[in-house]
Order: sequence, then C-alpha cells, then structure tokens
Amino acid sequence: MPRQVDHESRRRLIADAVCRLADERGLEGVTLRDVAARAEVSMGAVQRCFRTKEEMLLFALGAIGRRIGERVQARLVRSPAQSAASALGHAATEIALLDAEHRAEARVWLAFLAQAAVDQGLAEVLRANYAALQELFTGLVSEARAATGRPSAPVDAVREARALLALADGLTTHVLIGHLGAAEAQEVLHTHLSRLWEGAEAPETA
Amino acid sequence: MPRQVDHESRRRLIADAVCRLADERGLEGVTLRDVAARAEVSMGAVQRCFRTKEEMLLFALGAIGRRIGERVQARLVRSPAQSAASALGHAATEIALLDAEHRAEARVWLAFLAQAAVDQGLAEVLRANYAALQELFTGLVSEARAATGRPSAPVDAVREARALLALADGLTTHVLIGHLGAAEAQEVLHTHLSRLWEGAEAPETA
Repeated sequence: MPRQVDHESRRRLIADAVCRLADERGLEGVTLRDVAARAEVSMGAVQRCFRTKEEMLLFALGAIGRRIGERVQARLVRSPAQSAASALGHAATEIALLDAEHRAEARVWLAFLAQAAVDQGLAEVLRANYAALQELFTGLVSEARAATGRPSAPVDAVREARALLALADGLTTHVLIGHLGAAEAQEVLHTHLSRLWEGAEAPETA
Repeated sequence: MPRQVDHESRRRLIADAVCRLADERGLEGVTLRDVAARAEVSMGAVQRCFRTKEEMLLFALGAIGRRIGERVQARLVRSPAQSAASALGHAATEIALLDAEHRAEARVWLAFLAQAAVDQGLAEVLRANYAALQELFTGLVSEARAATGRPSAPVDAVREARALLALADGLTTHVLIGHLGAAEAQEVLHTHLSRLWEGAEAPETA
C-alpha cells in the first residue's frame, strides 16, 4: 500500500477515535494519549499524523461534516422522483440527527459547536459547513415552494433555510439533554416544514 | 454580616468567575485554581464553598438560568399593557441572547449544553430550566393566539413553545460561531413569531 494512502487511512482511524472519546466524555476528555490508546496506535504515530491537538480536532470535525453531507446527498439521489417538498423533509431529518443511530454524532457535533464559540479555527470549519448546508437548503426550499405554486423571492428562501438549520440544531440539542424525546422533536420539525408552503404567505387580514 | 449571607455572596462571586473563564476558554478552561485566582479568593475558600468542580459548575449554571428567567419576567412585568403577541416577542428575544451584551452568557450557556450531553447532573438542571421556559412560552403562545382570534388546542401551544425554544437556541449558536449576524438571526426569529398567528392555521387549499 503506498505510504500516502496509509497516512490518510491512519488519520481517519485516529479521527474515529477522537469522535468516540468526545461522544463519551466531551471534547475535554480528548487527549493525545487517550486517542492513541483508543486507536491502538503509538503516541508517535498520532503526532506524525497531526502536529497539534487542534489540527486533530479540525480533521475530526471535517470528517463528521463530510459524512453528514454525504448522507444528505445520498437521500436526495436515492429517490430522484420524490417531490421537492419530501426531498426537503428528508434532508432536514438527516441533518437534525434525531434518531438514536446518530446520537453519538450529534453529541460530538454539539461539543464542536460549543468549542467553536471560543476557538476561531473550529468556527471557520463550521462556518464553511453551514454555508454549504444553507445553500443546499435554500435551493430545496425554492424548489419546494415553486412546485406548490408558491414561489418565493430568493431572500425568503435564504431566510427559511436559516430557520430550518437553526431549528434542526436546537431540536438536536434539546433531545441530547433529554428535554424532548426524538419523536416530539420530529413532530416539531415536521410541522415547521409543512407550514413552509401551506400557510406561510397568507395575508395578515386572514 | 451573618456568616450564612457571607457564604452565599461568596458562592455568587465564585460563580461569576466560573462564567467569565468559561466565556474566555470554554468549560475546559475552568479549573478550581484558575477560578480562585479570578475570584481573588484562596483555593481553600473555593473548596469550602463547593466540594467538587461539578458542584461549582451546577451552581454557576443555576445562576445564569435564574438571571435569564428574571430578565424575561421583568420584560413581561415592565409593560403590563402590551399585547400578548408583543409579550411573546419580547420574551423570545430575551432568551435568544442575540445582542452583543449577552454574548458571554450565550457562550457559557452553549458550553453547559454541550457538557450536559455527557453529564447527567448538568442535564438535570438544564431540563428543569427548559421545562419552566416551555411552560411560560406555552402560556404566552396560547394568550397571543386567543387574542388574535386564533385560539389553538393546548397541544399546539406546547408544540409552538418547543419550536420557539429550539429555534432560539439554534439561532444563538449560529450567531456565536459567526454563521449568522445578530440582525439576520433576529429577522428569522421575528418572521417565525409573526407567522404564529398570521397564517399558521390557513387551510391547505389556500
């Protein structure tokens, strides 16, 4: 196996160990030593892959972001014949990470969000992720509204995309701390989505 | 000054130091030693006030929760003649912590949320806070809808309250990491609120 590939797959292995530790203890519990132990590699191997803990965290964050993005795209591609509205619903459900299967990913993502509030490097990676998601959702909202005969100005679709991303993140957080059950959160998300084209533009005097 | 009062005010002083450190570095940066230095008290004084770091963090979290709750109540009491809809808007704006003045509080709250995902003690305190906020907002939503001639079933008001709390938290997070500006987040929140009674119940065939 060429050395370059070996290096890359080792980085991914280490990033996985970072995520498993962050899931169990929060980012606070992620030390180079524990990551090496969990990935079953030497401290030296970790240090050859990542010069600093910061660099290691950035790589792990990027890896989760790519995985979520790929799942969203896969949902969109899998059912090309689905309506724009249901495509939007699937994509929103995918990023909200509400089901038990993605609970660990959600916990790690939240840990990164909190750390990004005091760490510019992490914040930059997250901003790139959210900018891409916002663009994707703006497109899906425009399509869905056009398909239901309620085309909206571009600025509205951007605002709707922002609201959806914020609502999804807030719901994820509230499920993680046990304020809401996954089904309750799903119902809130579903109701929000269904209103996007049902009654959103009704006149004030209605 | 009686010893009991002295003890309580020292605990609040220490909680303030916890919040300032968490704001600068995240919860990871909060050590007993640094808290003592920041509060300008001895390590022994910190240990007499709080037996563990966990107990100290719980107290600090409770203090922020009470402060936010008091501000929301104050906004509601200050303008008793305001419409239910504008009371709801004010309360939602208050908890979203979007303005620069409350940025530090928002950062600390987010740090606690992330840590609560891996810490049952913190999660319990947060759940009590969110349960109280949900009750408050459920009441405000019901009143606002009744006042605009769109009374809703109780279960709807609960769902709306959940959506509002999740949206507010998500927007706060996105402002903290720089994905959204405060004004953009405020616009998303404002639009969401205005829809609660404007077009929310419009028929599907509209």
